[in-house]
Amino acid sequence: MKAKYDVGIIGGGIIGQSIAYQLAKENISVVVLEGNKVGAGATSAAAGMLGASSELENNDAFFQFAKESQQQYKTLRHDLTNLSQINIQYVDKGMYKLAFTEQEAYVLKTAMKEHHSLEWHSKQQVLAMEPNLSKEIVGGLYIPEDGHVSPKHVCAAFSKSASLLGAVIVENSPVHSIKKLGEEEYILFTNQSEYSCSHIVIANGVWSDYFFKQLDLEMKVKPVKGECLAVSSENISLEKTIFYDHCYIVPKGDGRLVVGATMVEDDWSTTPTVGGIQTLIEKITPILPAIKSAKLLETWAGLRPQTDDGKPYIGQHPNGENIYFATGHYRNGILLAPKTGTMVRDLILKRKLNEDYVKAFSITRNLAKAAR
Amino acid sequence: MKAKYDVGIIGGGIIGQSIAYQLAKENISVVVLEGNKVGAGATSAAAGMLGASSELENNDAFFQFAKESQQQYKTLRHDLTNLSQINIQYVDKGMYKLAFTEQEAYVLKTAMKEHHSLEWHSKQQVLAMEPNLSKEIVGGLYIPEDGHVSPKHVCAAFSKSASLLGAVIVENSPVHSIKKLGEEEYILFTNQSEYSCSHIVIANGVWSDYFFKQLDLEMKVKPVKGECLAVSSENISLEKTIFYDHCYIVPKGDGRLVVGATMVEDDWSTTPTVGGIQTLIEKITPILPAIKSAKLLETWAGLRPQTDDGKPYIGQHPNGENIYFATGHYRNGILLAPKTGTMVRDLILKRKLNEDYVKAFSITRNLAKAAR
Amino acid sequence: MKAKYDVGIIGGGIIGQSIAYQLAKENISVVVLEGNKVGAGATSAAAGMLGASSELENNDAFFQFAKESQQQYKTLRHDLTNLSQINIQYVDKGMYKLAFTEQEAYVLKTAMKEHHSLEWHSKQQVLAMEPNLSKEIVGGLYIPEDGHVSPKHVCAAFSKSASLLGAVIVENSPVHSIKKLGEEEYILFTNQSEYSCSHIVIANGVWSDYFFKQLDLEMKVKPVKGECLAVSSENISLEKTIFYDHCYIVPKGDGRLVVGATMVEDDWSTTPTVGGIQTLIEKITPILPAIKSAKLLETWAGLRPQTDDGKPYIGQHPNGENIYFATGHYRNGILLAPKTGTMVRDLILKRKLNEDYVKAFSITRNLAKAAR
Amino acid sequence: MKAKYDVGIIGGGIIGQSIAYQLAKENISVVVLEGNKVGAGATSAAAGMLGASSELENNDAFFQFAKESQQQYKTLRHDLTNLSQINIQYVDKGMYKLAFTEQEAYVLKTAMKEHHSLEWHSKQQVLAMEPNLSKEIVGGLYIPEDGHVSPKHVCAAFSKSASLLGAVIVENSPVHSIKKLGEEEYILFTNQSEYSCSHIVIANGVWSDYFFKQLDLEMKVKPVKGECLAVSSENISLEKTIFYDHCYIVPKGDGRLVVGATMVEDDWSTTPTVGGIQTLIEKITPILPAIKSAKLLETWAGLRPQTDDGKPYIGQHPNGENIYFATGHYRNGILLAPKTGTMVRDLILKRKLNEDYVKAFSITRNLAKAAR
Repeated sequence: MKAKYDVGIIGGGIIGQSIAYQLAKENISVVVLEGNKVGAGATSAAAGMLGASSELENNDAFFQFAKESQQQYKTLRHDLTNLSQINIQYVDKGMYKLAFTEQEAYVLKTAMKEHHSLEWHSKQQVLAMEPNLSKEIVGGLYIPEDGHVSPKHVCAAFSKSASLLGAVIVENSPVHSIKKLGEEEYILFTNQSEYSCSHIVIANGVWSDYFFKQLDLEMKVKPVKGECLAVSSENISLEKTIFYDHCYIVPKGDGRLVVGATMVEDDWSTTPTVGGIQTLIEKITPILPAIKSAKLLETWAGLRPQTDDGKPYIGQHPNGENIYFATGHYRNGILLAPKTGTMVRDLILKRKLNEDYVKAFSITRNLAKAAR
Repeated sequence: MKAKYDVGIIGGGIIGQSIAYQLAKENISVVVLEGNKVGAGATSAAAGMLGASSELENNDAFFQFAKESQQQYKTLRHDLTNLSQINIQYVDKGMYKLAFTEQEAYVLKTAMKEHHSLEWHSKQQVLAMEPNLSKEIVGGLYIPEDGHVSPKHVCAAFSKSASLLGAVIVENSPVHSIKKLGEEEYILFTNQSEYSCSHIVIANGVWSDYFFKQLDLEMKVKPVKGECLAVSSENISLEKTIFYDHCYIVPKGDGRLVVGATMVEDDWSTTPTVGGIQTLIEKITPILPAIKSAKLLETWAGLRPQTDDGKPYIGQHPNGENIYFATGHYRNGILLAPKTGTMVRDLILKRKLNEDYVKAFSITRNLAKAAR
Repeated sequence: MKAKYDVGIIGGGIIGQSIAYQLAKENISVVVLEGNKVGAGATSAAAGMLGASSELENNDAFFQFAKESQQQYKTLRHDLTNLSQINIQYVDKGMYKLAFTEQEAYVLKTAMKEHHSLEWHSKQQVLAMEPNLSKEIVGGLYIPEDGHVSPKHVCAAFSKSASLLGAVIVENSPVHSIKKLGEEEYILFTNQSEYSCSHIVIANGVWSDYFFKQLDLEMKVKPVKGECLAVSSENISLEKTIFYDHCYIVPKGDGRLVVGATMVEDDWSTTPTVGGIQTLIEKITPILPAIKSAKLLETWAGLRPQTDDGKPYIGQHPNGENIYFATGHYRNGILLAPKTGTMVRDLILKRKLNEDYVKAFSITRNLAKAAR
Repeated sequence: MKAKYDVGIIGGGIIGQSIAYQLAKENISVVVLEGNKVGAGATSAAAGMLGASSELENNDAFFQFAKESQQQYKTLRHDLTNLSQINIQYVDKGMYKLAFTEQEAYVLKTAMKEHHSLEWHSKQQVLAMEPNLSKEIVGGLYIPEDGHVSPKHVCAAFSKSASLLGAVIVENSPVHSIKKLGEEEYILFTNQSEYSCSHIVIANGVWSDYFFKQLDLEMKVKPVKGECLAVSSENISLEKTIFYDHCYIVPKGDGRLVVGATMVEDDWSTTPTVGGIQTLIEKITPILPAIKSAKLLETWAGLRPQTDDGKPYIGQHPNGENIYFATGHYRNGILLAPKTGTMVRDLILKRKLNEDYVKAFSITRNLAKAAR
């Protein structure tokens, strides 16, 4: 005899746990099936930047969604701590996107037109604030809202909160297949057991590609491996996240500076390579020269789930199956986790949705485009 | 387009890698698909005892198979080091099975009738050899052949040797399903890719239960969780493995004493619990009292794959499919890995087999029994 | 040629770093000489309880000092984060001291007379708040002010803040001897170098006993080893620190429950023993029965510096040397670090001091008593 | 009342433990006082090459001493395992010193004249043996005797063997000063206790410089920090140690390739820096190009104790004090540990010594030279 749940979530990373938390709060019965340990995949590898303005370039639906998600962290940080006693390590000191040439400065400044909170800081202003940065900069775009969190603490806080609200979290339990028994009855098959669920959410990042194939859908999620390192130094003062040329330095609240990340396509390994770490050091040293004498503490790697257009798939199965997708968050999984959680909750509960978001993240959006 | 292999092995633990090594040596093209990291499951959790006489009680086919496997380690240790440069940490100092009552001594002594290398040592003899053991013992059965290896080094040596001989080892790649295309053509589906193979070997321990179900076979493999701890002490002298009441203390070549193991059924967690470690300490302290002041170095847990009768399934699919099983090795996976490797190789290559072993490990043996 | 400093601090744990921070803020030149890594000793081993009311039984100078120190954390948490970007993980959810018998309840209730913020909660009230506690309790004393911090984060935040304010922090640098050259000139000898300092502060916990001897003082600081363990569980809800019979469970903001601690005298080892961990499990299980099935994450040990009467030595050398002591904080080093920092600063700067504190922590107090 | 010992050894690294083992074997009562954990300093950081021919360039007393020490490992490996059950991981597959230019080849070939076991291998021969090496080499000097061991296992085996033979090993116990009480009576002062010893051996590597100063001797031992990294790869086949331009790659028996080492003077930090690891990667990649895609497993650093002329100080105090030195082994501590152990034993027991060695390692040799 199988256990029965309203919703079965495949994937216990930050996305799956955010959804589980939002559903458990509504008294929906939920099971989360995680193939490894909770948060052990892309979640733990992420630096935790909440880079709505820094990562996204257009003022489109994706950007609006990201801003709302960023905003949600402000209440979540309290709600999650109250329930789970876990502190998500929210830091809101902002970010600098640096320019080393006038051309780069010009491009950054154009972003200010659309986003009114952004400020241009001259070289002198930037160095007054962050004296350890390279003297070669010409200035920096200051983005006050782009803070950071600790991804594994956020994920653990979602997970424990969901669990205390009644959700069942199962580790070491990869889902092998989904079988439809009836209108609102699916079976999730794992090595350990079978789970009967009225609704299914596929939220397992790079591993979700397999289910697209199994469900005969043409979408793809591909891994883009990112390698990172962490350093510390008693002599480097750094308050704000620094961003330049796809690399970043995040001053975490535990004293580590997290540096990332490489972009390696079609590599499923989760261990950094010698060459990857070398590349990262070469890119970061010109930005923060003092880092050369910082203590190298650790190195690691993770797999970002990338879709064809770099935006996540958040939506229902195209032919109305009670199967939902929340995957492909690429570089933005931590940022987008809160809003993804509430959007999937609303999809399942048939609540009113922002149609711009539905369209922007529809899993068939690229097919439509391809057909045109 | 899929890659094509003669043999696809599901599971990159010590069993799968032993098979891969034996096949690669015969120039068979092999792919090993491991869901996590090579050797990360039951293999790494094992203490590595080669306890043919100590674990098995009858002089039957199972015991003969175990003795042959134990014997194979004597040549493997050299072959694997020569090829892979990895030292499997073979130690052949023997084992004591202790008796604390005359009744226990009587039972142990009866084992000597069938196994001529065994010796009964009096309390004085045992304590002369192992002065830190409890003074409460009445004697011990000395088993000279039962040495130990380092399971993760054996697995790494098999894996690297197989790889250098041409086998392809893929990590982070759980197999989700097996599809038959033709007489000698199966597809293995993973998240990452699809692999076309003429023969399939299912060797993924507790996770293989899923394939029995998928293939509509009635066999079962269930996890029995075992918790362990490692200690060290400059003052405890221990040369031989000590065994009593399902617990053991193995003096490893790196100076650690490995203590195991609890037996917890139907628990898929791979983290030790507070209660499990407490039980282990309570059981082991009366055997080696000085352990109370030893340094506690680490604790861990693993899942032993148990079949209905405690013997492994090694054999072909009952209706002649080119699907082979090598799973369910329970407490004896390290001991049995070498002989399992050669037996599966011989099965696939249609070489002459010992019929006693074929029967003893046939996957249908229990069905037959049940039907009788 | 030696470097010259106003103050040389021996010991880079939480006490030494708190003093360094307070002095550096006043533009005093400081060198901190740490024998190992910053915070690697008793600091890192501590659970971080700020147990003024829970640890101290009388409403005396010691208690007042502890309360002031506890209070200082409320501003320090902001000041330190602003300067160092390190979050000290301050949690202010309070503590329960449990009673399992009416006699224990009676003793706890008497404490309420002197401390007006304390509240007695009945069994029902306690279990309503903390449902996973033992049903055998008869009630609990609720202490709202006794929160907790992360000791290694506090120490790192003091150290980095001091460093950014100009203090010099030297690791791997045990001080071997102090030599007086003149009225305000001492040399600190280390393996690496010599440091000329006008004032010396001895703040190296259990290691400071050596300097008492070297300076021909009769005070003593002895180690009392404490062993701890950390667990986690998705099913245990615990908001407040729990205290009973010298054992505690602290729900840390990273999801771990830290359990401590044994008390082993005259043992300088910093590794937990098998027997110590067993004792701890046996004591804690009746308090929080669900802990038996919690995941055991790690075990460790540290050395508390204990004086003859259990109170710290904070004060100047008895014959007016410019040598100061800040050691012997026993179970209360984390709690007392802030106030110790400001008191030593005031001692060195000849500022007005609370005479009750000067007397209570004078290094000659016990001699006086002994002579009486 | 103080404990009394024939010999007090300051330093529990591989040198101190080798001496302790040799003395304990002769029934001499020994105490080893280690400031941290046994083997935690330079010992653990070393790669363990036994590079007599590869590291030393002249056929002088130093070289003869090194060859004898290398030879001693052949019996020690068995003796230590029999006593302690610890396997020192001895590997005797030899070493290649590579040449990338004809000039380098010429220099290497000249070494063959004096050392008859050396062989010159052409580019083709080297690549046939080690196919993953750079195709840019012009050949290699093959040194069959230069194997390797695991330094921390050697140290642990010496320590446990000495302990089982009666030596007392005290951790967490830095010695602060030596006081002479009489002809054969010294007191060693530590934080924990005082130890009365008839003879003193100073064997604490970079930390021994302090005692030269305290004893008014003019010798110096300076740290030269070395940073290392370890990698693994299923695809890199490497049997022999590779050496080029002060860098090496050692294929350890656990499957790791250990790569070292930088040379940083006057740096007492034991954590690798970002810049140091970058340098190491840049130097090693041209030698073994495939290493770029190897998994980076860990990085670390240690402090080699360097004397003025790069040779160790092994000998008695110049004015006949019963104080002995065994320090300053620089890059060769692992190689020289066995012979240093027997030489110091013979010094203390007034046995016949090789006068060439006495002169070569005399602590006053450089003074004599300076005076000339």
